Amino acid sequence: MFDEQDLTPVDQLGEFKLIEHVTRDFEVKNADVLKGVGDDAAVYRVGNGLVHVVSTDLLMEGVHFDLSYAPLQHVGYKSVVVNLSDIYAMNAKPFGVTVSIAMSNRFTVEAIDALYAGIHKACETYGVDLLGGDTSSSQAGLGISVTAIGSAKEEDVVYRSGSKHNDLICLTGDVGSAYAGLQVLKREKAVFLKNPNMQPDLAGFDYVVGRQLKPEARKDIIAELAKAGVRPTSMIDVSDGLASEVNHLCRQSGLGATIYQDKIILDHETVKVAEEFNLPGLTMGLNGGEDYELLFTAKLEDFDVLNSFRGIQIIGHMGAEGESAFLQMVDGSTAPLTAQGWNHFKDEQ
Amino acid sequence: MFDEQDLTPVDQLGEFKLIEHVTRDFEVKNADVLKGVGDDAAVYRVGNGLVHVVSTDLLMEGVHFDLSYAPLQHVGYKSVVVNLSDIYAMNAKPFGVTVSIAMSNRFTVEAIDALYAGIHKACETYGVDLLGGDTSSSQAGLGISVTAIGSAKEEDVVYRSGSKHNDLICLTGDVGSAYAGLQVLKREKAVFLKNPNMQPDLAGFDYVVGRQLKPEARKDIIAELAKAGVRPTSMIDVSDGLASEVNHLCRQSGLGATIYQDKIILDHETVKVAEEFNLPGLTMGLNGGEDYELLFTAKLEDFDVLNSFRGIQIIGHMGAEGESAFLQMVDGSTAPLTAQGWNHFKDEQ
Repeated sequence: MFDEQDLTPVDQLGEFKLIEHVTRDFEVKNADVLKGVGDDAAVYRVGNGLVHVVSTDLLMEGVHFDLSYAPLQHVGYKSVVVNLSDIYAMNAKPFGVTVSIAMSNRFTVEAIDALYAGIHKACETYGVDLLGGDTSSSQAGLGISVTAIGSAKEEDVVYRSGSKHNDLICLTGDVGSAYAGLQVLKREKAVFLKNPNMQPDLAGFDYVVGRQLKPEARKDIIAELAKAGVRPTSMIDVSDGLASEVNHLCRQSGLGATIYQDKIILDHETVKVAEEFNLPGLTMGLNGGEDYELLFTAKLEDFDVLNSFRGIQIIGHMGAEGESAFLQMVDGSTAPLTAQGWNHFKDEQ
Repeated sequence: MFDEQDLTPVDQLGEFKLIEHVTRDFEVKNADVLKGVGDDAAVYRVGNGLVHVVSTDLLMEGVHFDLSYAPLQHVGYKSVVVNLSDIYAMNAKPFGVTVSIAMSNRFTVEAIDALYAGIHKACETYGVDLLGGDTSSSQAGLGISVTAIGSAKEEDVVYRSGSKHNDLICLTGDVGSAYAGLQVLKREKAVFLKNPNMQPDLAGFDYVVGRQLKPEARKDIIAELAKAGVRPTSMIDVSDGLASEVNHLCRQSGLGATIYQDKIILDHETVKVAEEFNLPGLTMGLNGGEDYELLFTAKLEDFDVLNSFRGIQIIGHMGAEGESAFLQMVDGSTAPLTAQGWNHFKDEQ
C-alpha cells in the first residue's frame, strides 16, 4: 500500500502530535458543536443555554494497567474515574458513561464481575448512570473503553484556552504520588516474580499505592469553587504530568507561564519513594502523571479566596503572549518547563 | 482471588447473557435517563422535548476485523458506520462520534492516516462531527472504540420493546451478503497464504465483499419512513443476524413472531457464494450477521405504504403475548427461529 521508504514510525510523532496530525482534516460541521477535538472534552449545545461535554479513553492491559498487581475491581473503578476527571476539567457535571470491554477467553465470569463491581462503585460514588455496555472478545488481554458525558451551562464551561496574562496558576492536591505508587508496585512485582512465596510489602505506602490503583476525580473542588464564586479562566486535568499540562494551557492560551519549585507539593510517601528508589522527587512531581488533580488558572482578584482554600495551591502565574513555560527553582534560577509526560509510544513499549 | 472450582468460563454465558449479567445491578439514578442498558442505544432527555441517544462499540483486530484483507481505510469507515447504524435504529439522527484507537508500534503514521481517512469519509458521508479522539498504544494489534451520539424528539424514539400483536415485521435490503463476502475473503486469504504470488480473485463478488468491508447504515430508510409518515413500533439494526434480532424484538416486546422463508431476500451473489461454498443460503441469511439493515415492526394500517416501499420487505408479523418466534418454510411447515447469531466467545476464538 505504501512505499517502504516513506513510512514513519508512530513513535516519531508522539501521542499529542499524532492526535493533531490525524484530526487535522476534521472540520466541525454542526453549528451546535462548540469544540470538537483538542480539549479535555468536546462541547456541544443541547438547548436552553445548556451544553453537554463528552470525553473518551481506551485503556489496554499491559499499557494502561497491569493485572499482576492491579485488582480488576480497581481497574474498573479507575477506568470510569479517569474519564469523569476530564468532564470535571471542563467545569461540567458528569451524568453518564458508556463502557465497552473486550477480553480474551482466559477471563472468567467472576473476573468480569469484579471489573464491573468497580465500574458500579464508581458510578455510585459519582452519581452517574451506565448508558450502554458492550462486551466482546479480544485475541489478547483486556481492553476497556469508557466514554463520559456531562452537562453544564454554556457560560460555565472552562476551556484550556481561556487564561490571560498574570492569571494565577492553581493546582489541587499533590502530584507525583501515583507515579510513586507505581514504582512500589513494580518493585513488589519483581520480588514476587523472583520468589512467588514472598508476600508483597506495601506497608507505609498505602497512600501512593492507592493513588495509582484507585484515583479519585476532583468533583469536590469543582463544587467548592462554584460555591466560592471562583470561575477558573482555563482548566485541564493532570493525567500526563504537571509540566505537560502547564504547557497545554500555555499553548492553547498562547501565553507563557512561570511555576515555582517550592510550591509543588509532594506527599511525604512520595518523598520516601524518591529516597528509597533514588529518584528525583521534583521530576516525579512534574512528569509523573496519572495524578488526576485539576490544574487551572484564575484571575488575580481571586487570590485571597484561593490562597485560603484547603487543597488548592497557587503554584505560579501565566506569562505574556508568545512566552514559554518556566520553572523557577528555590535558588532563584529558572529552567524551561519541559513536558516529558507519558509518551505511550516511546516509554511504554 | 477466587476458588478455582467456582470459576465460570465466559463462553458459558455468551455475549447477550453476559451483558445482562454484568449490568444487573445498575439502576438508573438520573430522572432524565429514559433507557440505560438494553437497547441499540441509551436514551436521555436534554430538554425542549428532545432526547439524545448514545451507542458504543469496541472493535478488536483479529476478532472484528482482519487486516490481512480489510484495508485500514475500510476498517475506519466501518467502525463509525456500525455505531451510526445503532443510532438510526432508535429512529434518531446521529450528529457526533468519539473515536479512540490503541495500536501496537508496528503501525506507522501512514497506516493510521489510512484508518483516519476512512473515519473522516464516514463522518462526511453521514454528516457527523468528530467529538474527541484518543490514541494510545497496545501490546498487540489494533483496537478501535467508537461512541456515537444522536438526537430525536422524545416521541419519535423507537425502542425494541414497542411492538404489538399482529404488527408487520419489516426488513430493509438483503441479508447474508456480508457473511458471504467474508467467506470469499477468507478463501482468498487462504489461497494467498499458500502461494503469496497469487492475486486475490474477487471478480463477481464485488457486492458481497463490499458489504463485508464497507457497510452502510440505513440513514436513507429512516428519512424515507419519516417522509411517508410511517413510525415503526419497534426497531433494531441487524448486526448479529436476522434470527437473533427477531428474537430480541420478541423478548423485549414480550411477544411471538412468524417470519416467512420466501420473504427473506438474498442477493444473487450471496446465492452464488452459498452454491460455490456449499453453504445453506437460508442459514446465511438468518444468522450471517453484520448486515446493518434495519428490522422493524409497524402497524397493520401501514401495510399499503410499506408494501410499495422500494427496499423494504414485509417478512412476517408479530405473534401473541408469551409466544415464540417461528420460521414458516415455503412447504408450509414451521420451525422455531433460533438465534445462532455471533457468539464472540464461542465462535471466534
